[in-house]
Amino acid sequence: MSILREALFAPASVAVVGQSNDVTKTAGRPLKFLLQMGYAGRIYPINPGRDAVLGQRAWPSLAALPEAPDHAYIVTPTDAAIDAVAECGKLGVKVATVLADGFTEAGDLGDRRVARLRDICTETGIRVVGPSSLGIVDLRSRAMLTANAAFDENDLPAGRFFAASHSGSMIGSLLSRGKARGLGFAGLVSVGNEVDLSLGEICEATLDDPGIDGYMLFLETMRNADALRRFALAASKRGKPIIAYKLGRSEAARELAVSHTGALAGENDVADAFLADCGIARVMTLDGLIEGLPLMMRVPVQTSRRAAVGVVTTTGGGATMVVDPLSTAGVTITQPSAETLARFKAAGIDVKPARIVDVTLAGARYDVMKAALDILTTAPEYDLILPVIGSSARFHPELAVKPIVDCAGSAKPIAACLVPDAPAALAMLSEAGVPSFRTPEACADAVAAALRRRAPRPAPERVARPPARDGRVLDELDAGTLIERYGIPRAAAVVLDADIARAPTLPFPYPVVVKALSAEIAHKTEAGGVVLNVADGDALLEAIKAIRSNVAQAMPHASVPRMLVQPMVSGVGEALIGYRVDPAVGPLVMVAAGGILTEIYRDRSLRLAPIDLATAKEMIAEVRAFAALAGFRGRPKGDLDALADAIVALSRLAGDPSIAEAEINPLIVRPDGVVAVDALVKLV
Amino acid sequence: MSILREALFAPASVAVVGQSNDVTKTAGRPLKFLLQMGYAGRIYPINPGRDAVLGQRAWPSLAALPEAPDHAYIVTPTDAAIDAVAECGKLGVKVATVLADGFTEAGDLGDRRVARLRDICTETGIRVVGPSSLGIVDLRSRAMLTANAAFDENDLPAGRFFAASHSGSMIGSLLSRGKARGLGFAGLVSVGNEVDLSLGEICEATLDDPGIDGYMLFLETMRNADALRRFALAASKRGKPIIAYKLGRSEAARELAVSHTGALAGENDVADAFLADCGIARVMTLDGLIEGLPLMMRVPVQTSRRAAVGVVTTTGGGATMVVDPLSTAGVTITQPSAETLARFKAAGIDVKPARIVDVTLAGARYDVMKAALDILTTAPEYDLILPVIGSSARFHPELAVKPIVDCAGSAKPIAACLVPDAPAALAMLSEAGVPSFRTPEACADAVAAALRRRAPRPAPERVARPPARDGRVLDELDAGTLIERYGIPRAAAVVLDADIARAPTLPFPYPVVVKALSAEIAHKTEAGGVVLNVADGDALLEAIKAIRSNVAQAMPHASVPRMLVQPMVSGVGEALIGYRVDPAVGPLVMVAAGGILTEIYRDRSLRLAPIDLATAKEMIAEVRAFAALAGFRGRPKGDLDALADAIVALSRLAGDPSIAEAEINPLIVRPDGVVAVDALVKLV
Repeated sequence: MSILREALFAPASVAVVGQSNDVTKTAGRPLKFLLQMGYAGRIYPINPGRDAVLGQRAWPSLAALPEAPDHAYIVTPTDAAIDAVAECGKLGVKVATVLADGFTEAGDLGDRRVARLRDICTETGIRVVGPSSLGIVDLRSRAMLTANAAFDENDLPAGRFFAASHSGSMIGSLLSRGKARGLGFAGLVSVGNEVDLSLGEICEATLDDPGIDGYMLFLETMRNADALRRFALAASKRGKPIIAYKLGRSEAARELAVSHTGALAGENDVADAFLADCGIARVMTLDGLIEGLPLMMRVPVQTSRRAAVGVVTTTGGGATMVVDPLSTAGVTITQPSAETLARFKAAGIDVKPARIVDVTLAGARYDVMKAALDILTTAPEYDLILPVIGSSARFHPELAVKPIVDCAGSAKPIAACLVPDAPAALAMLSEAGVPSFRTPEACADAVAAALRRRAPRPAPERVARPPARDGRVLDELDAGTLIERYGIPRAAAVVLDADIARAPTLPFPYPVVVKALSAEIAHKTEAGGVVLNVADGDALLEAIKAIRSNVAQAMPHASVPRMLVQPMVSGVGEALIGYRVDPAVGPLVMVAAGGILTEIYRDRSLRLAPIDLATAKEMIAEVRAFAALAGFRGRPKGDLDALADAIVALSRLAGDPSIAEAEINPLIVRPDGVVAVDALVKLV
Repeated sequence: MSILREALFAPASVAVVGQSNDVTKTAGRPLKFLLQMGYAGRIYPINPGRDAVLGQRAWPSLAALPEAPDHAYIVTPTDAAIDAVAECGKLGVKVATVLADGFTEAGDLGDRRVARLRDICTETGIRVVGPSSLGIVDLRSRAMLTANAAFDENDLPAGRFFAASHSGSMIGSLLSRGKARGLGFAGLVSVGNEVDLSLGEICEATLDDPGIDGYMLFLETMRNADALRRFALAASKRGKPIIAYKLGRSEAARELAVSHTGALAGENDVADAFLADCGIARVMTLDGLIEGLPLMMRVPVQTSRRAAVGVVTTTGGGATMVVDPLSTAGVTITQPSAETLARFKAAGIDVKPARIVDVTLAGARYDVMKAALDILTTAPEYDLILPVIGSSARFHPELAVKPIVDCAGSAKPIAACLVPDAPAALAMLSEAGVPSFRTPEACADAVAAALRRRAPRPAPERVARPPARDGRVLDELDAGTLIERYGIPRAAAVVLDADIARAPTLPFPYPVVVKALSAEIAHKTEAGGVVLNVADGDALLEAIKAIRSNVAQAMPHASVPRMLVQPMVSGVGEALIGYRVDPAVGPLVMVAAGGILTEIYRDRSLRLAPIDLATAKEMIAEVRAFAALAGFRGRPKGDLDALADAIVALSRLAGDPSIAEAEINPLIVRPDGVVAVDALVKLV
């Protein structure tokens, strides 16, 4: 066992710095829980004001202890906590977990405290969990270093999952809700502000723990994304799935996360892209988080093929309640093939050809459901079988629930959903390790997340990036040259002096577009720096004159010595493709259909850059507006393959650390090929 | 008590036709449940093959009974069931409930059976529940006329809600899930195929029952919408709220509903519009349905003002989990006003100015939460207070849950959400009648539904409509004249003979658009029947020639003796407005932004027609694309007031029974006014 893992989860000795004698207080709880759970290591409560706390000998200080404990839980107020960490470091304590707040969420003063903590870590080698950590718990070693009142229970559900949370109160809720659903934990951690040990690092430290099968994450921010990715990659290699709930789908929630953790929650679709890239299954409901992990353990990561679900039920209405959110989430529910229907017939089960296998008429009987599951779990058209059981599940689980238990080891994964309130049947399923769900919504949420899950991508090659500065913007000509070098076709262009007296012969026919060529003008159109549909040489001179006058008026300090002239390019549609380096998750590539409506609808697809061609095609399929370029209602098709090539090309900017942002808008999509007609590139 | 209500829910005598002696069979259950629950009326099991069933005297036939029972539950196979209904009718039985299937979902044969049942009803005056009804139950009179195995329980939760469901199995699930959440039922009905008594009529029959406070509906179709509306209006007058879950948000679910009930589920947004128009709160989750009704009883129907929610919590992360889906559902979560914050300060409670009131630092204490709720429930900025309680709720409900119970009678409604698994606290809240929720998602679902709920609209004036035929389409000139009569401005137009030799002087300047004027050509553009941007008289003659040739080629049998000439109309945007008569819910008016993208995004707003101006403005606000006409990113604004006038005008077509459909596409939106440039009107 690694030293870190041992100190975190199986310490031979622990100190509780600031332990109170009053168990109704937060600072009174850790010792109470340690004693209550029967932690077998040595316990050192530190309380300079008392000889004893909760009937145990109290120590006046860390320095007075007979040994440096492996792990100290510091439950004093903020400033005293920093001093205690310093003392721990000096004494050789391996890990200190800090309860106090007043750090990342507390402005300048907080920042100074963070810096101090980090200095202590660097200087002494101590590792810190928190601050703002409600604690860290191992239910096997019974190291209960937590002040979370939810652990005040004798019958805590020990098991094979590990939970990590940015929210301290949530570890208690995951514990109790898991218990209610027959799900136990090896350990739980409230990671707090992660000023030293991040959520990813703590989880990574547990990876070789043979008692842990999978991970449940409650995330509020995308902070420390690199560590999370390393953990996810390593977990995937060990076949240990990760399920995550991430707050911040709404603006209101993102704003709260900032005030709550001092860290930006990040944009929702950036989090989506990042978690997917790491092979982490993101669920959208609390019940989906609680109930989903057994399913992730059974469903292999998907390849690009669209997975198909087979639904079998004893209640048509109940099953439709699951089909509705599943189908809305994009999951395919497939009718049995003719061969499969023939097998039902041969088994004497009356099944109509329909999108679900409804055995209501055959009755809620063991033999019927068992035969149905045997047929479906061996039918090649399915990737996952979803039995939805009606009223009989409540008092007669032996009828239609027991067959599911008896198919737990089938070739295809099963996810069971029970329509009535049926706690005993749910317990029976959980006991047998069969993924099972209390509500149609959680079932659909988890199944969709499981079928979306892909293998994590190997960590992209690390390109050292200088810290972001307020970098220089390239002019359109240089930007165009750059993207062309990456392989993205761009419109022909001629540069003219702004003071030419006669129109030159152009290498392309009129009409043309004339634009001010200057890196100083970020919004050319708004500054009057663009004239479209210029018909001939005279009009060209007119246009240049107009642009000079417009720009002089709009931006008196901008100089526009040159003009860019390009042919008017038309196509069957357009796209916007963009690249940027997100402060949390790194390089991203984006595609949207461009224009005001796609902005209003936020209809875009994001991935971590760089990407391959298959991923680019997935991205295009995710942008709903591109249906208009794929033959919708007989419209002319655009060259979406060329668009995919361009997205791949732009994503390769991830290999150039000097580039902060790039955007091609519009990229004209033609029936044959694409052409960039405007590009913006910002250096770091 | 009305005769119907008495026969349905408190019959003095019941017959079970086809009662089996085997309680493991469906047909064995009704008598078992009647005996088990201690139904006090007279029971007549009918079974010609036995002298006794389940220890009770069995009767050979209905005719052999000493009286005509008030209510007969017929559990025989299909054809025998029809005969039994006929005999019931002849004997004067008031209501027959039919279990058998094989009716609306069974094609032509089924249709003939339906006709036969309806004839029996007309001829004899008997009323029928079903067929395909799993039964009807009153938990007070203990009239257990059901074959649903879920009722095989001694401790059924009697209470003050009434549940009605298209799905027979769901009445069992509503019962057991309600019980698990401390929610009891006065009665439940599985309405089956509604060939005679509809869901709305059955519920309406219970409206004067003083033991019923509210209604829970599980809907699979929009069949019998008129009866549902009548019930909803009458329920609203009595202050009895209705909550509904409606299957069919996805295409897959709608397809299943057809095979399951033989009735179309209807488009999802049509159901939305209809339920909202009836003042029925539609929830999207099963838990929201189960837990939502107590909230609907507390939250008054909303006026047009946007309601604001105040969140108070002992767990920041947990509360954000509720804020996220609430905010995504469009609910406003409001920061306390300066006055309210001052009241917190005066009460000695440390609250930071933020979107939620987080009392975590003050601690999960009775006095803190009670004071916070007292302040928030009397703060004028809030319409609803949402306490989100953390870990303490599990074992110490006296701390932060009890104060919620003690505020049950506050001036503002409260909806409580508990983050840990805390069944005792939930029971305490339910017992006190405080709306409370087990998951953040159900809480957000129900709160959003409650705050969306408006008073039902009085039934629109009934205009007798002839049955839909394959009606005539007006030509564009007549269509334009019609919509102009309704007050919608349209583009100027001149009609020319198609064979004119010289271009006439037009009453408006060139450029113009030339269109084939013929009711025979539904898709003018596709047929080459439109030429835009016609610059002068010569071009006009050219255009007419081209159109004649195009149409002759595309539609050799269409005659085009006339052309319509209009000015080219431009604006800052366009809209599509439409009117049609839905077979289930009646006249509808629709607005969308038009164009291919709004079609792809299905970005439209629907209402039952006719509507008033305020509703038209709401509709415009619901169409996301119209943000582009409301000053988005400094773009020119369109005259959305004039658009609203046009929607109102089009909706008045509901008063003309001769019109089946109308569509104005596009309606050009200008900075000042709107202009219809194309209209399609179809007669009934």
